[in-house]
Amino acid sequence: MRDVRRPIGVFDSGVGGLTVLRALRERLPREDFLYFGDTARVPYGGKPLPMVRRFAWEIAGFLLREGVKAIVVACNTASSAALPDLAEDLSVPVFGVLEPAAEEARAHAKVGLIGTQATVGSGAYERHLDIAWKKACPLFVPLVEEGLWEDPVALLVARHYLEEAPKDLEALILGCTHYPFLKPVIGQVLPGVRLIDSAEATAKKVARVLEAEGLLNPEGRGRVVHYVTGDPEAYRALAQRLGEEVLEVRRVGLEEL
Amino acid sequence: MRDVRRPIGVFDSGVGGLTVLRALRERLPREDFLYFGDTARVPYGGKPLPMVRRFAWEIAGFLLREGVKAIVVACNTASSAALPDLAEDLSVPVFGVLEPAAEEARAHAKVGLIGTQATVGSGAYERHLDIAWKKACPLFVPLVEEGLWEDPVALLVARHYLEEAPKDLEALILGCTHYPFLKPVIGQVLPGVRLIDSAEATAKKVARVLEAEGLLNPEGRGRVVHYVTGDPEAYRALAQRLGEEVLEVRRVGLEEL
Repeated sequence: MRDVRRPIGVFDSGVGGLTVLRALRERLPREDFLYFGDTARVPYGGKPLPMVRRFAWEIAGFLLREGVKAIVVACNTASSAALPDLAEDLSVPVFGVLEPAAEEARAHAKVGLIGTQATVGSGAYERHLDIAWKKACPLFVPLVEEGLWEDPVALLVARHYLEEAPKDLEALILGCTHYPFLKPVIGQVLPGVRLIDSAEATAKKVARVLEAEGLLNPEGRGRVVHYVTGDPEAYRALAQRLGEEVLEVRRVGLEEL
Repeated sequence: MRDVRRPIGVFDSGVGGLTVLRALRERLPREDFLYFGDTARVPYGGKPLPMVRRFAWEIAGFLLREGVKAIVVACNTASSAALPDLAEDLSVPVFGVLEPAAEEARAHAKVGLIGTQATVGSGAYERHLDIAWKKACPLFVPLVEEGLWEDPVALLVARHYLEEAPKDLEALILGCTHYPFLKPVIGQVLPGVRLIDSAEATAKKVARVLEAEGLLNPEGRGRVVHYVTGDPEAYRALAQRLGEEVLEVRRVGLEEL
């Protein structure tokens, strides 16, 4: 079934991937999307990688049964756990968030990385480029989910994490899909450092590949259907706090995966 | 099997319940303990209550098969989800963390409550007493797990959450097992307010009931065996950051529950 009008599947453990969805929609306004948030099992960060790999396969299978034409793994942990396997074994194009960010960062001499404990500890980015400095920033996700990204608390927390970054850092990979919200605050602490937003980088790559493969939808309306494994209303409220209006949301039982 | 030398089972979604374990060990130094941290499925806070109830039953079953003589549900979310059912249906004494704290708080005229989104939103404390003011404090758990409870960040975050508390609050229930670490900081923001620590309150109640039922161990050595569903070494490191030396830790697969 090579119907280019099929939606693009995007998945994350929770709401973080919504930054990727937003970047995708800006770049591809004629595409329709299925966004899958595994909110009953969030966060993936602290879980064993084989478990996260199984979750990624379950969700990819679900999205394929729903008829997606491409899959975006909009979660750093799942990207490190399930790629490149997933991309090799599925018949549709599969994109992670790591590689596109790493590709952009490679143009710079001295690159730093921030992310969750799992992402920073996994060494996944180091498979793509040299990382001169890295730091896990576990408070950033709850800060964003609380809507505090412009609060003085965010600035103090950002200083706490970033004050030891080398002075000659050229670029910093925001290795977590929640972090784009914190760009202004991080920019204040590290002026002059280029912040590499994996949401943007991924959207750019997805657009390029879909176009090259003749998979762009000429007539979509930018419709998004959200699937969540946890409570749909809690999801809707949290997404709204992050600026995403959720019009259609469906609950998926874990037994359906 | 009414052998009083059997251990006491304590469980939580993760490391938060270690504050309860510590309070129990201080009060009952001759008891042995099994501590179960469901670290593969942490946190319970955002999950649907029926799911949390199932987890609680699974873990209680596991602990009973391991031969515990009593069960302490050292987690607010699991306590609200699974009690009183669990206590009524099991043959060993079962304790939650909610009721003991609520009992202590009832002596005060104007009581506040802080906790996770799930605990504060559940209305579970209101079934036990009047709550004059309440506030969800989602950043407190990651602050504690990062070991930042004495950092200026903690004070700023505590101010952020607590500045709107009524001036005439008499007592504040720390409705999350992580929060005892933040007592000094919370006390600084709310001087003169009695902070009700559910770990302490629960330990006191467990000691009282076990003594009344003739279940105290005359000859235990204070041994603790930890069971976790996630990565044992990550657990050991996190527990250590919270001041808990983990000597024996075993991984339990979810399929064993």
